[in-house]
Amino acid sequence: MTRVAVLGAGGYAGGEVLRLLLAHPAVEVAQATSEQHAGKRLDFPHPHLRGASTLRFAPHDALEPCDVLVSCMPSGELIRRWSQVSPLAARIIDLSADFRLGPVEHARWYPRAPRPAELPEFVYGLPEWAGARLRDARLVAVPGCMAHAALLGLLPLVRAGLVRPEMVVVDAKTGSSGGGATPDRSSHHPERASALRCYRPTGHRHTGEIEAATERFTGTRATVHFSATAVPSVRGILATVHAFAARPLEDANEPLRALASTYREHPFVNVLRANASASPFPEPGPLSGTNHCDLSVDVDAERGRIVVNAALDNLVKGAAGTAVHALNLMLGRPETEGLGFRGLHPL
Amino acid sequence: MTRVAVLGAGGYAGGEVLRLLLAHPAVEVAQATSEQHAGKRLDFPHPHLRGASTLRFAPHDALEPCDVLVSCMPSGELIRRWSQVSPLAARIIDLSADFRLGPVEHARWYPRAPRPAELPEFVYGLPEWAGARLRDARLVAVPGCMAHAALLGLLPLVRAGLVRPEMVVVDAKTGSSGGGATPDRSSHHPERASALRCYRPTGHRHTGEIEAATERFTGTRATVHFSATAVPSVRGILATVHAFAARPLEDANEPLRALASTYREHPFVNVLRANASASPFPEPGPLSGTNHCDLSVDVDAERGRIVVNAALDNLVKGAAGTAVHALNLMLGRPETEGLGFRGLHPL
Amino acid sequence: MTRVAVLGAGGYAGGEVLRLLLAHPAVEVAQATSEQHAGKRLDFPHPHLRGASTLRFAPHDALEPCDVLVSCMPSGELIRRWSQVSPLAARIIDLSADFRLGPVEHARWYPRAPRPAELPEFVYGLPEWAGARLRDARLVAVPGCMAHAALLGLLPLVRAGLVRPEMVVVDAKTGSSGGGATPDRSSHHPERASALRCYRPTGHRHTGEIEAATERFTGTRATVHFSATAVPSVRGILATVHAFAARPLEDANEPLRALASTYREHPFVNVLRANASASPFPEPGPLSGTNHCDLSVDVDAERGRIVVNAALDNLVKGAAGTAVHALNLMLGRPETEGLGFRGLHPL
Amino acid sequence: MTRVAVLGAGGYAGGEVLRLLLAHPAVEVAQATSEQHAGKRLDFPHPHLRGASTLRFAPHDALEPCDVLVSCMPSGELIRRWSQVSPLAARIIDLSADFRLGPVEHARWYPRAPRPAELPEFVYGLPEWAGARLRDARLVAVPGCMAHAALLGLLPLVRAGLVRPEMVVVDAKTGSSGGGATPDRSSHHPERASALRCYRPTGHRHTGEIEAATERFTGTRATVHFSATAVPSVRGILATVHAFAARPLEDANEPLRALASTYREHPFVNVLRANASASPFPEPGPLSGTNHCDLSVDVDAERGRIVVNAALDNLVKGAAGTAVHALNLMLGRPETEGLGFRGLHPL
Repeated sequence: MTRVAVLGAGGYAGGEVLRLLLAHPAVEVAQATSEQHAGKRLDFPHPHLRGASTLRFAPHDALEPCDVLVSCMPSGELIRRWSQVSPLAARIIDLSADFRLGPVEHARWYPRAPRPAELPEFVYGLPEWAGARLRDARLVAVPGCMAHAALLGLLPLVRAGLVRPEMVVVDAKTGSSGGGATPDRSSHHPERASALRCYRPTGHRHTGEIEAATERFTGTRATVHFSATAVPSVRGILATVHAFAARPLEDANEPLRALASTYREHPFVNVLRANASASPFPEPGPLSGTNHCDLSVDVDAERGRIVVNAALDNLVKGAAGTAVHALNLMLGRPETEGLGFRGLHPL
Repeated sequence: MTRVAVLGAGGYAGGEVLRLLLAHPAVEVAQATSEQHAGKRLDFPHPHLRGASTLRFAPHDALEPCDVLVSCMPSGELIRRWSQVSPLAARIIDLSADFRLGPVEHARWYPRAPRPAELPEFVYGLPEWAGARLRDARLVAVPGCMAHAALLGLLPLVRAGLVRPEMVVVDAKTGSSGGGATPDRSSHHPERASALRCYRPTGHRHTGEIEAATERFTGTRATVHFSATAVPSVRGILATVHAFAARPLEDANEPLRALASTYREHPFVNVLRANASASPFPEPGPLSGTNHCDLSVDVDAERGRIVVNAALDNLVKGAAGTAVHALNLMLGRPETEGLGFRGLHPL
Repeated sequence: MTRVAVLGAGGYAGGEVLRLLLAHPAVEVAQATSEQHAGKRLDFPHPHLRGASTLRFAPHDALEPCDVLVSCMPSGELIRRWSQVSPLAARIIDLSADFRLGPVEHARWYPRAPRPAELPEFVYGLPEWAGARLRDARLVAVPGCMAHAALLGLLPLVRAGLVRPEMVVVDAKTGSSGGGATPDRSSHHPERASALRCYRPTGHRHTGEIEAATERFTGTRATVHFSATAVPSVRGILATVHAFAARPLEDANEPLRALASTYREHPFVNVLRANASASPFPEPGPLSGTNHCDLSVDVDAERGRIVVNAALDNLVKGAAGTAVHALNLMLGRPETEGLGFRGLHPL
Repeated sequence: MTRVAVLGAGGYAGGEVLRLLLAHPAVEVAQATSEQHAGKRLDFPHPHLRGASTLRFAPHDALEPCDVLVSCMPSGELIRRWSQVSPLAARIIDLSADFRLGPVEHARWYPRAPRPAELPEFVYGLPEWAGARLRDARLVAVPGCMAHAALLGLLPLVRAGLVRPEMVVVDAKTGSSGGGATPDRSSHHPERASALRCYRPTGHRHTGEIEAATERFTGTRATVHFSATAVPSVRGILATVHAFAARPLEDANEPLRALASTYREHPFVNVLRANASASPFPEPGPLSGTNHCDLSVDVDAERGRIVVNAALDNLVKGAAGTAVHALNLMLGRPETEGLGFRGLHPL
């Protein structure tokens, strides 16, 4: 059994990491830390873990050596505690933004959490694209949830040269759980329950992440125009990628073929086809709790637009599930181990 | 492998039966029938079954012999097709109301779906109370979802003689999925999204079911005052049982002890205690998709009231999960087999 | 123009008081106070007041003399500031719990906010029942929102001697706005969005208020068994009153007649009749923003139960609207002045 | 009093037209027609009209002469009944898509509802832009709700030459009420409650309407890339317009000035500024029931993007309210008459 410790496990992503790892056949959860809940049982903040473990939260400083560390601490914390934390485990998977970008890009998008130059680089853990690099990785940064959705839709089109890389609009819609477990005015239920607000029309940090990852995985630099809109749900992201044909398409199905061939061997990405379902649109609802991403693609031939929609659960495929997916790859385990849940409908 | 056929599998309960059985290690889903979706794949109406099976729906009349039949057809249908269906399987589990009541009570509460006197009786499949009868059963009726929640809370109090059986108020709150998959005005999203309506203040059929089951399991006839209220959610039931002390309590914890001792050995019923959780109230949300029921009990010593709250997922513990639970018991399998999912939070 | 000052106007009830008064033809809003928002415009916390006023919040201590004070400060605050505030206006309307109960009952239900014996008594401002006392009142306490709903349904039955006063169950369902504008964990959107939790099964303070008001208005002391359940909505209350026939009814419509005759002359209480509407159930949704309460009554003749459902908007009929209603009565204005909004559907 | 008849008044837009007209000081509702509800009172399908009128629905064929006809019939119906309906009133306001486009464009986007060439043209009733044409109009077509939101945001930028007209992306988010009052699977509450689905990525008919109206009002033809996404709410639209700078901006506030100067004199369009509110984003929630549209504009100077967000209530500013606004203009009444409601918060 691989002994895994989870840092910052009192929040929502941490709760999902614990849910997945406690049921994982090859993993033992050795420790879970939370300053706020230290001394309390895991199910104190996480009702869905009732009966799943008798473990109690430890404070961060009580962290002991283990095989793999999964850090769910807020952005900036792992950087800050690096010298303390990094010697404790041979492998580290980080869910924050601390190591997703190269140092220069990081300093630009996260000016308040500078990353010392001597810190090592992490592998950007987009499993379907990082491939072999993940199997050999010692340090992995889990992508941001909205970047994750957008990239799964965008990358096949860029790689295939189908779309103009200098003009990509990503309009992402997100539930409230991505904002974390700490209450504030904007997450207060009477204010948030009917929210339909483009809370970050420009300047969202995932812009840089999508641009950098597109270059990393396709060799082509893209200019991404990103906006994020809060919608009245808790879990789930829908990223709508508006891209524009770089050349005449062979036929209207060429983008669909690009997506389908990209993900044919990948168990967690599904390309939806019209008429295969009573509701053939990617939607995060039925994906809640799963590590799956649903994609669709539509073409407006007359106006030269290619629209990809990508839906996923921000806390699973967009966070905890990808951490476990990366863990499986790093450990040489079956890719889908511990990630078999297929979702609920209706929900 | 036990070969199971699911009749009327195109609706919501059917979809959940399929989800559970397709992942059940001791079961093979032999057939699934649906008039509406005949010829379509299981995931056509059930997006969460994508990738889980390549089976297609058959029409009801194509049903072939199997080991166990699970019927999710609407109330009245299994009665109507009894002579056709019953020879096909040695064991039948029915999720409708057709066989929950004895013939006399059935005729009273379901006057439009009369049950011929020659039809056999079914075991009332409340697993925690039917016990050994379920292990030997050939025919099982799954309880109604709201009756199920109310009974789990009420029965321990009645059996212990703690409450006056002639005065029990059950105020049940329910999401929209209990109404099934067929659209109508009251389920139209603009009408239902903010609904908070006591749509059945009196005369709800689960009244008879709770009264009959209380007598069956405790020997005491109760008079149940039942009301059902629609709330703005999809899954889940909260049944609030207002009961009244039949005698002075030993102490304020006596009702809690009655509940806790009743369910100590039962893996799917949890009695919540104050302070054990950041949110120590039974709520259906984190139970979505699980076969668990959460209970709490509170006492107003001054006014002599004992309040039990019971939360469950109407489609799982209140329907499909109990069907699988009963199946496990009938087959001599481990009670929790195929029912290990612990839920999601937040949701 | 009557000059009205609103204390504690930064919260949700305060925002609704301002909305109603700013549009009231006989009122001028002279001041609005808020410690948190002092110096900001009214529409800073209240987006729906945009364009309605150029007033800015003052701190409490800047309060000046006016004709009528409406206090929306939290319970305990008006008591604490009584000697400062009370000389400033000849008439005071308080929306908190400070003056709803007599001193003895108040001390029992609000032990942490003791009320000095020398403070004057307020008229309990349930308009349909306080009648002439309100027209002559100088000091008015607006009822609690859940008590308000329950009382409108219960009082006619008790006064008519139809129900047993020693056994009344009130099961109230409420949205999140009743909890106020201050964020905490239980109101955090991811925790509250799917909440269906009986957060106060026993011991709710409105118990005492309903019992006291029943005695005050009918001369009969009732024993009220009250529970409050949070449902996934923002505005609105549905109070289900389960009462029990004290004697054989003349006929099944006797309770309906009792309600209908009580409220025949009262413009804000509507008794719904079956078949008069496509959805003949009291629901708070279409009452959002209005000062109306919808009632229905159902009878289970066999079991002797009479069920009244009462729906209202907790922030209007349950708070701000009743304050304005009382103001109209105190000023000798038309009862419905400034309260003409009839609601939206669908919502 | 102007006598107005409302055709097809049983649906959601019709209900809102009735709500507004019944409270309008210069209007008398002479007739309301509905095939489905003929003979029923207006409040049968419209609970918010209870107490507002004793009128009953007539069948369409019972329509009598009046001063103004407001048609809320589905697209295609007014065309079909033109010879019957048009002689009955000197002025007609149509809320359907029948007369929004010129005949050629209409045939292209609505091929199943051809419009005979001899039918007259309607004025496209976007009040802030149609201006004097509306005051003189005899026939007015109310814009589509999503087109309306998008146009209010886009037109000032195009007219000022700030953005490239050949590349405009409109990502519109909409609640369920826009789909009308007729239930179907996609609007069934369990399917729709958590929906976050881009149900029309390409080919939405409002594309043509936005393009045509942009040319009409600015003289510049734009190419609009439109997608529509269903979000989990009932009322409201948020249209996010992603546009791209046609030239270097004078400064970052130039787009804001273009919007602000355009709507300075228009009472129903508000341009939000940062820091003026605790929640400075356009959101449809607090606009529910109002005839207001909130706009904001953000600039990504580095990437040359200008983002406008436009929020409105699809049933009011996006339908019924604009009909009444147009009516006021046509009748020479004050622009805001009958449209004073400012909304509710929280909701």
